[in-house]
Amino acid sequence: MPRYRLDIEYDGTPFLGWQMQADGRTVQGVLAEALKKFSGEDVIPGGAGRTDTGVHALGQVAHVDLEKDWPADTVRDALNAHLRPDPISVLSAEIADEAFDARFSATARHYRYLIVNRRPPLALMANRAWLVHVALDADAMHDAAQVLIGNHDFTTFRAAACQAKSPVKTLDKLTVRRSGETIIIEASARSFLHHQVRSLAGALKFVGEGKWKKHDLKAALDACDRAKCPPLAPSAGLYLVQVDY
Amino acid sequence: MPRYRLDIEYDGTPFLGWQMQADGRTVQGVLAEALKKFSGEDVIPGGAGRTDTGVHALGQVAHVDLEKDWPADTVRDALNAHLRPDPISVLSAEIADEAFDARFSATARHYRYLIVNRRPPLALMANRAWLVHVALDADAMHDAAQVLIGNHDFTTFRAAACQAKSPVKTLDKLTVRRSGETIIIEASARSFLHHQVRSLAGALKFVGEGKWKKHDLKAALDACDRAKCPPLAPSAGLYLVQVDY
Repeated sequence: MPRYRLDIEYDGTPFLGWQMQADGRTVQGVLAEALKKFSGEDVIPGGAGRTDTGVHALGQVAHVDLEKDWPADTVRDALNAHLRPDPISVLSAEIADEAFDARFSATARHYRYLIVNRRPPLALMANRAWLVHVALDADAMHDAAQVLIGNHDFTTFRAAACQAKSPVKTLDKLTVRRSGETIIIEASARSFLHHQVRSLAGALKFVGEGKWKKHDLKAALDACDRAKCPPLAPSAGLYLVQVDY
Repeated sequence: MPRYRLDIEYDGTPFLGWQMQADGRTVQGVLAEALKKFSGEDVIPGGAGRTDTGVHALGQVAHVDLEKDWPADTVRDALNAHLRPDPISVLSAEIADEAFDARFSATARHYRYLIVNRRPPLALMANRAWLVHVALDADAMHDAAQVLIGNHDFTTFRAAACQAKSPVKTLDKLTVRRSGETIIIEASARSFLHHQVRSLAGALKFVGEGKWKKHDLKAALDACDRAKCPPLAPSAGLYLVQVDY
């Protein structure tokens, strides 16, 4: 019974997130349907990151066990044929070690958050970025972000519904840069709490517009109090870019 | 009666192109409806480029005359409010000289054509690029493209339905470069023939996959024969990026 690793890209807009649900279409659920149509088997792929409703992926990773020993490229092409016209693409499939677990074997996850910083509405980037009207200072955001690097209790930046046992995580990278009207936030860690990246993006927006200084961000972190978190950045700006093993 | 210049971005996917039609939604038609709702006037904006069905714009330019002397920012914001939820965004509105004509005053038009060169289907770039499976040599495409620069009879690369009086145009720039799996073609000229950029992109794809050499592209140009043109590249990959005045 071979185990396959799938690398997957998706536009999260039409899905209720990654995780299968009793009602509503999810990326995991649509993949399971495609796996069933192709192989006849009832299998549920396990994913590296449980992205929320509307969150995108350029490099989600999943693993799945199939009874039959299919060539990996056949798995990729057959899944893509059955996924049509849903905006989910299996970029690659490969035979993985039986110990490979997309979630637990991951050593790092890399997320990107896109803000378009302008007044006019989004047309080509609709559902793919957060439109922020007020002028943001990306340098100030980047500078302040560095107080969050390292091992901390991230309770302030964690969803109330987060199921992680501990709120302590190590944030390895949090950078902010501007490219024209786009502000690009990049975050890397072994793992993240539920809503952590969107919470951090919302807090950095406060810094960018001058509502918060670096020391306010530090104080919010130190408070370990969810009530101190600015409003969550919308899901449409978030991309799961890469998972390392 | 002030004349306004509008700079406009749109996702061309849901529209039957720029030009107003008896039936079917077009960008020009939807803009005219928004102008009517906002000002009460029946006016049709004149555009710089008559983009086809599915073609996108990052910087289309139009002009329109209104009876009332509105502040330019009011025109922009009111139009955007009435355009919602269509993926058309008025990036800016400004008072223009009465001699300003979006089409005839233009001194250069800049188009971009995007190819995603990979086997898996498009998810996030669906309807926004041409998916080409066979590996393309972007350097060979760029090198060959240079034979098209300058003043030529572009009959080979012109739609049968093209209404331009002459097939002779001056192509100022045609570059091809690769960025990861994306191939970016950029074309600049004072004006283009109907389907010219998509015809050129289709021909450059022939070069990229090795079906044509540089001399085949030159021979096709010299033939002045539409039948020598490779299949048109699909509209989804084309963007009107900028118009100069």
